Order: sequence, then C-alpha cells, then structure tokens
Amino acid sequence: VPPLVVLSHPEPTSFAAALAHTAADVLDAQLLDLYAEGFDPRLTAADFTDREDAARLRPMEEQLHAVRTGSFAPDIARHVELLRSTDLLVMVQPFWWFSLPAMAKGWVDRVFVNGLAYEYPGHEPWTGPLDHVRALAVFTSSYEREEFEPGGRVGSVESVLYPLLWGTFAYCGMQVLEPFVAYAADSVDEETRAGYLEALGGRLESVEAEAPLFGGQPSG
Amino acid sequence: VPPLVVLSHPEPTSFAAALAHTAADVLDAQLLDLYAEGFDPRLTAADFTDREDAARLRPMEEQLHAVRTGSFAPDIARHVELLRSTDLLVMVQPFWWFSLPAMAKGWVDRVFVNGLAYEYPGHEPWTGPLDHVRALAVFTSSYEREEFEPGGRVGSVESVLYPLLWGTFAYCGMQVLEPFVAYAADSVDEETRAGYLEALGGRLESVEAEAPLFGGQPSG
Repeated sequence: VPPLVVLSHPEPTSFAAALAHTAADVLDAQLLDLYAEGFDPRLTAADFTDREDAARLRPMEEQLHAVRTGSFAPDIARHVELLRSTDLLVMVQPFWWFSLPAMAKGWVDRVFVNGLAYEYPGHEPWTGPLDHVRALAVFTSSYEREEFEPGGRVGSVESVLYPLLWGTFAYCGMQVLEPFVAYAADSVDEETRAGYLEALGGRLESVEAEAPLFGGQPSG
Repeated sequence: VPPLVVLSHPEPTSFAAALAHTAADVLDAQLLDLYAEGFDPRLTAADFTDREDAARLRPMEEQLHAVRTGSFAPDIARHVELLRSTDLLVMVQPFWWFSLPAMAKGWVDRVFVNGLAYEYPGHEPWTGPLDHVRALAVFTSSYEREEFEPGGRVGSVESVLYPLLWGTFAYCGMQVLEPFVAYAADSVDEETRAGYLEALGGRLESVEAEAPLFGGQPSG
C-alpha cells in the first residue's frame, strides 16, 4: 500500500513542492499535486452522479449515499479510493491565514466523505474506518519558530492546527503525527532550507516507528 | 457604505442561505453569494495581470504589487473593493471540519490581500488598514450547543475558530464580534430555526452598539 502525499501550492518551484517531492521520494509514495491536476476544491452537487435527494443538496447525506451506491463523480471516486487504501497520509501546503489553503481544505471537504472517513450516523467520532491511517501535516510558514512558541504571537502549532489535527485527522480515527513546519521558509538561507528537506526525509525514513501525538487505535 | 454579507453554501435553500438573506435584509447589505456567482477559491497566477516576478509566483509579493499597480484580475479587483469599502463584514457558512468551507477560505486567501487587509512588510499584524471593519462570523453546525461547551467534544466556538477570528479578522485589525452559531441546524424543528433567524436579525439591528470581543482600534 503506497503512502499518499498531497501537495497544495500554486507554484511548482515553491518550497512546499520541494518538501512534497522529498516526502514522495523517501516514501516511494503516490504524489497528488492538486494544483497540477486542476483539482476543484468546491464541494457541489456535481460530486454525486446519483442523488438521494435531487431537490436539496445535503452533503453528508449524499456522500453516504454515494459511498453505498458507488456513485461519486470520477475525480472524487479516484481520490476517495486513494485515501481509503493508504496507511500514511502526508498533506503538504503553506500556512495561509493560520490554516489550510482553500485547495487543501477543499480536498478534505470533498474527499473525507461520510461513510468512509467517518460514519454519521453510526460510528462515534474520533474512532472509525480510517484508524489504520497515520496522518502527517507538513507546512511552510513565513513566521519564525519563536512566533509559535509560548508568548509568541501565532500560538502553538498544535493549537493553531486544532481544526485539522483534532477536528479532521483524529475525528476520523487517524493517528496524528507531530506536524512538520518549515519556519520562515521564504527568508532562511539555502543551507537552512536544505536542512529542512533532510530533516523531513530522515523523519519519514522511520515514520513507522514514530509514536503518534494522539488519535487512532493502539497499533498492533 | 453598505455592509457586506458573504455566503458560502452550495445549496440555495440551505439554512446558511436563509441566515445570509436575513442578514442582508436587516442590514440593507450587499450580498455576495459565492457559489451562485461561481467564485473560484483557488489562488493562482491568474489573480494578477501584471506580475512583479513572472518566473515564480509568491502570492504575498504579487498581491502587494497588484494593490500598488491596480492590476488584480477583474473578479478579485471587485471583491477587494467591496471588502475595502465596507464597515461591517458578515461571513455566513456551514462549519465543515471545524473550519470554513473551501469556498469561504478561498475568498479569504484571494481577497484579504497584502497591501490592503494587512501590510507586509509595514504595519504590525493585529493593526492595520481594516481597523474600521467590524467582522461577524455566522455558522450553521450539525452539532448541539452542548458540544461547544466546556467538556463538550468540539471545543469552545472561540477556540475552534481561532484561525478565523484571531488569525484572520483580528490579524487585519478588524473588530471581532461574537460569532453567531445556529446549532444543530439540520435537526432542530422549524420553530427553533425561525428563532435563529429572529435572533440574528435582532442582533444585527443594533450591531453598531455591540462591543467587539477583541481586535481593532477603540472606536471613536
């Protein structure tokens, strides 16, 4: 089962892209470059080829229906299958406004579907079908490391990323790994950037042995 | 100066849409229905008609250049002007994954531009050109109110919305009003829903007098 690396950045030569390619190389992973493939982050009625209720779009209900009937639009079906069949998800993107860029957020909105990533009604949240998946968020930031430390003006990485780490990854039962942040990615020198790539690559070489921060079922 | 109501929901008959229309009616506001107008939440090179650096897209730098040279693509120029010229911004959307839907997040990514919503380099964050703007987030949620209370499994509205309230609105110097949440919007009865619309409308009738939670300059 190949790991899945999902990249969201509009510039192919961005440092986020470099981190994603390093991750994909080290892991021998499938790389989804959402901008390159023209992924549309807008959840719409077009996600569903067979509506349970054609009169009124209720996304959670239609996702569940589409899982049960195999009726997602082809692009969503492909991404859902990639998510379902991986054991390691690495999402790589810049910090924009203390959170995911719209592209990455839309990948979550459209692909973390009810009936697969969680089950409503059914499973309790923070357990679920994706408890075999380890999830790693990789961000570039224009902020310095100190700004994420106590007293810094951003806040801790974990508190800023609460909606992603807790409200998304852990919500689906995933095992949440410590996020990797390339601080001040735009302003550091080449040597520091090379160090970031090396640090990420080194970490991923032994990611199987890494204890998650939280979430998921205890792994065997 | 008309208030600005920005709606992000794919279903025109959603309760989020009802809240947005109520807000727009009470405030006599401009309503931007992002799905209806086909807004694209993806920040790309197409936002900029005159690149400072055509070889490599660095969004913050190009936004600043576009503000200075008046060279945004027409759709962005229009939205930036609406944001710049309002004193009250109301963003209405469902809670998806403890945060904004991609559509709303992309409106922030593309329209809260460097050189207008903030100035980097230049102004310190949490001050800035939009300190005359009051910002109100209005969400529908499938969760019950108790789940946002202490001990509830979501977390407080303010902590969940930290990236939007603090990292976006307050970052730009805006005065952040207490968010309005229609809890369990899908499952409550019609009377409760009517109560939500009435509560939002009533609140907006006297929004000028409301003390912000935080952010902004003390108003005159």
